[in-house]
Amino acid sequence: MAYELYYWPGIQGRGEFVRLALEDAGADYVDVARRPAKSGGGVRALMAMLDSKSSAQIPFAPPFLKDGDVVISHVANILLYLGSRLGLAPEDEAMRHFAHGLQLTITDFVAETHDTHHPISTELYYEDQKEAAKANAAAFIEERIPKFMGYFERVLKQNPAGDAHPVGASHSYVDLSLFQMIEGLHYAFPRGMAGFAKTHPRLERMRERVRRRPNIAAYLKSDRRTPFNESGIFRCYPELDRGA
Amino acid sequence: MAYELYYWPGIQGRGEFVRLALEDAGADYVDVARRPAKSGGGVRALMAMLDSKSSAQIPFAPPFLKDGDVVISHVANILLYLGSRLGLAPEDEAMRHFAHGLQLTITDFVAETHDTHHPISTELYYEDQKEAAKANAAAFIEERIPKFMGYFERVLKQNPAGDAHPVGASHSYVDLSLFQMIEGLHYAFPRGMAGFAKTHPRLERMRERVRRRPNIAAYLKSDRRTPFNESGIFRCYPELDRGA
Repeated sequence: MAYELYYWPGIQGRGEFVRLALEDAGADYVDVARRPAKSGGGVRALMAMLDSKSSAQIPFAPPFLKDGDVVISHVANILLYLGSRLGLAPEDEAMRHFAHGLQLTITDFVAETHDTHHPISTELYYEDQKEAAKANAAAFIEERIPKFMGYFERVLKQNPAGDAHPVGASHSYVDLSLFQMIEGLHYAFPRGMAGFAKTHPRLERMRERVRRRPNIAAYLKSDRRTPFNESGIFRCYPELDRGA
Repeated sequence: MAYELYYWPGIQGRGEFVRLALEDAGADYVDVARRPAKSGGGVRALMAMLDSKSSAQIPFAPPFLKDGDVVISHVANILLYLGSRLGLAPEDEAMRHFAHGLQLTITDFVAETHDTHHPISTELYYEDQKEAAKANAAAFIEERIPKFMGYFERVLKQNPAGDAHPVGASHSYVDLSLFQMIEGLHYAFPRGMAGFAKTHPRLERMRERVRRRPNIAAYLKSDRRTPFNESGIFRCYPELDRGA
């Protein structure tokens, strides 16, 4: 039976980290909220899961994944569940927890990225928190991107199995998620990310390798890949970029 | 061999969610950074792990747990690892992922709580972002606490195994973490949390039950329980509370 992914249509958002894993593995999945409402899809199907007054396991927010009766919420939890099933995670228990820890660091990085345009409240418009956003984004570019990306570069460098992958000697969902982070940051902060390839050569090589994986290359060209836009996590607001 | 917990001394912080699980289970553990530097403890021991130029699995930030050669980082990941070992998690795979998803929602809640006093940057002092903090805290009290706590109250209410626990019919690490969240929010926002027991009766009963567990009651009275203070996640700044 196909996996059912529930996520807001119209943006990549957090759902994209799950989509990349499903696409890379060539898994059979349905992107529920992107399907027509008349075939049981749409935001209505997603809201019905969130608002259920009877379900035993209600998710707090999208994305969540349904696999038959099993409901898994949060990106890192979904990838932990899918990792072993899709061949995108190590089998060893300690290494699985290491991969999961890296993914949770990416989760934090994603949240901080979102805070650059919504530092006061997710309930307010960007326009109503623009001044705080400028201060937040400046600190993010100068301190947080180097701290997070410097960390992941070190993880590659210190990997005893070689510096091609963050986890062991094989491609995993962590490679895919780091690819997405780097793509998104280039979209949001082209000036802030200008020197990235030079200062993070291993991450840059990993990014290029992921981009050339056949299923990923095909996905990126397909209409299933929603372009980055200003409703998602990574938003191109020039006034928030370096030197604005 | 004793588990080794690495976390900043002097605050409860994120480490407290792990401590509560270890204490509740009566596990043998060492709180490494609280031990004297001369016996291999202190912040120096923690920094040596973070700054290692050779370790294969470097954590991004505390807390992290060492279990022999295994290093696990991030609270939810540590609790996932300890859950089965300490009898604080369900054995069924789907239920384990459900518990983990709840814990990851708590992780997000903790991050948003921290943002109330540091909305612009963790690198700036609170005093230098106080105005943004007031706006953030107001939105947090009026919108986010009800949203998160309303969700967890619903999880209890809709649990087919009864409304005493969030996961199945047994006590788990999720009960402990929710206890800590509720305690912390009462400390930080006494006015904002004034009506909590009335609007969230199931969570309130769960909180009282956790507090009376013998190992937890003993821990809370011990000097191992650092009091809440204004360097941690939950800070009592009256100017950020409701009606300030």
